[in-house]
Amino acid sequence: MSSELPTILSQPGAEARLCVHTITTKQLSLEECLAEFPKRGVSGLTIWRQALEGRKLAAVGRRVREAGLELVSLCRGGFFPASDAAARQRAVDDNLLSIEQAHGIGAPLIVLVCGAVPGQSLAESRKQIADGIAAVLPAAAQAGVRLAIEPLHPMYADDRSAVNTLRQAHEICDALGSPESLGIAVDAYHVWWDPELEAQIALAGQTGRLLAFHICDWLTPTCDLLNDRGLMGEGCINLREMSAWVDAAGFAGHREVEIFSNRWWAAEPRHFLEEIAASYRRLYS
Amino acid sequence: MSSELPTILSQPGAEARLCVHTITTKQLSLEECLAEFPKRGVSGLTIWRQALEGRKLAAVGRRVREAGLELVSLCRGGFFPASDAAARQRAVDDNLLSIEQAHGIGAPLIVLVCGAVPGQSLAESRKQIADGIAAVLPAAAQAGVRLAIEPLHPMYADDRSAVNTLRQAHEICDALGSPESLGIAVDAYHVWWDPELEAQIALAGQTGRLLAFHICDWLTPTCDLLNDRGLMGEGCINLREMSAWVDAAGFAGHREVEIFSNRWWAAEPRHFLEEIAASYRRLYS
Repeated sequence: MSSELPTILSQPGAEARLCVHTITTKQLSLEECLAEFPKRGVSGLTIWRQALEGRKLAAVGRRVREAGLELVSLCRGGFFPASDAAARQRAVDDNLLSIEQAHGIGAPLIVLVCGAVPGQSLAESRKQIADGIAAVLPAAAQAGVRLAIEPLHPMYADDRSAVNTLRQAHEICDALGSPESLGIAVDAYHVWWDPELEAQIALAGQTGRLLAFHICDWLTPTCDLLNDRGLMGEGCINLREMSAWVDAAGFAGHREVEIFSNRWWAAEPRHFLEEIAASYRRLYS
Repeated sequence: MSSELPTILSQPGAEARLCVHTITTKQLSLEECLAEFPKRGVSGLTIWRQALEGRKLAAVGRRVREAGLELVSLCRGGFFPASDAAARQRAVDDNLLSIEQAHGIGAPLIVLVCGAVPGQSLAESRKQIADGIAAVLPAAAQAGVRLAIEPLHPMYADDRSAVNTLRQAHEICDALGSPESLGIAVDAYHVWWDPELEAQIALAGQTGRLLAFHICDWLTPTCDLLNDRGLMGEGCINLREMSAWVDAAGFAGHREVEIFSNRWWAAEPRHFLEEIAASYRRLYS
């Protein structure tokens, strides 16, 4: 992966919905992201909370807008389940803080990685997730920030999320009375295997819950459960088909590139950014 | 993990349904398995096909019985999908061979890891799986060998199985007309996360399809997608609850210990066998 590739000429409009997560190019500072993303046609930015550390929230939001980028969402809230009530309250408090942060930078959405506790029943964790979301929803509504439940791949059911299918995300939205401030994030990596995928995406559209769409690819073989995601086109996910389902469901927001990859993180980050833009164009042009 | 632990005294009957797969103790030859398993109270044996290489089938079956072990199943058939018809026919031929082998050694069951092709749609792979099973079912029926569809964890949907839930396994059984020779293998590792698990196990009982139950554990963290399974009790799977569901569904067969683990494979195999028997007793006594 050479770092000396020429800058790929932009095809105007092809990247109109291209958003990149700060974690994807985590070697770049927020300032570098703001400088580099627009050069490659990236028009949206999703900020991970660690990128906010030590910064003034309003200033971050202003600089993102001045760079010509749309602030798509803040990653991430959630992790509600815990084995004791005090820890669950700390999780609620941290989610309230994330809502303040999203409001402060002007992000309209927080993605929720819901959480799980190894050895605690998944049913109990799901109940705690619903309770935790219910506890923070009023603050989200007041702040004008929406929350998106992101079902995580079942390989993360032990300690990251007891919500592993879009059906389960819908069930939580239903159980909480389908509040306006609550919706669903569809991440291709987590849900591509689901036999109900097309129907559940359509349902998310019909119910007004389809709030975010994350893309990357599934590699064969996958060598690490966390940090071996592929660039779009490197793997086996039916991204073109899935994107058509998302579009058909009425979603017109950004397609967010969220890639955790030890391999790509070892590459020169500006080169990686070129490759992201190029693979995005191949997929959607 | 010392190899010098004393042999744990047997509690008569506690291991009555304990079966171990030859792959679990793959450092042991088949002869060593036949000598060592009964000493630890193991009463069932599932043979992986590689253990049959270069052996006379009838003699293998006779020696297993002479060792006092019940031959529970042969692992594994399947891998039906392929991108061209010739490769799919080779898969059918190999499954016909596995039926001959099971018949030859006197195993009543073959477990099917159904297969998948990276980049081929999962729907197409599922169709090819159903077609492949249909092509070999008559030979299975004639040989008195049953076939068990084993849904694999969704993290194997790329290249190992497009059948990732018990619901999907039921759908294939339904589509093929619920033949007597076809059923389902429930492997705790693959299905523990499934929100429909209890109901789908019950359905497998009601339909006479519950043919096998595999156990091990899910580790946190899991460091390898293939070979980092835990011994029962090392991880987070609700094995006691799941076993109760399996029993309630009317399944009275062996509980088969199938553990792929680079960590345990590095231990002295007789010690590992002691640990398997001890963890089994802790779970079921």
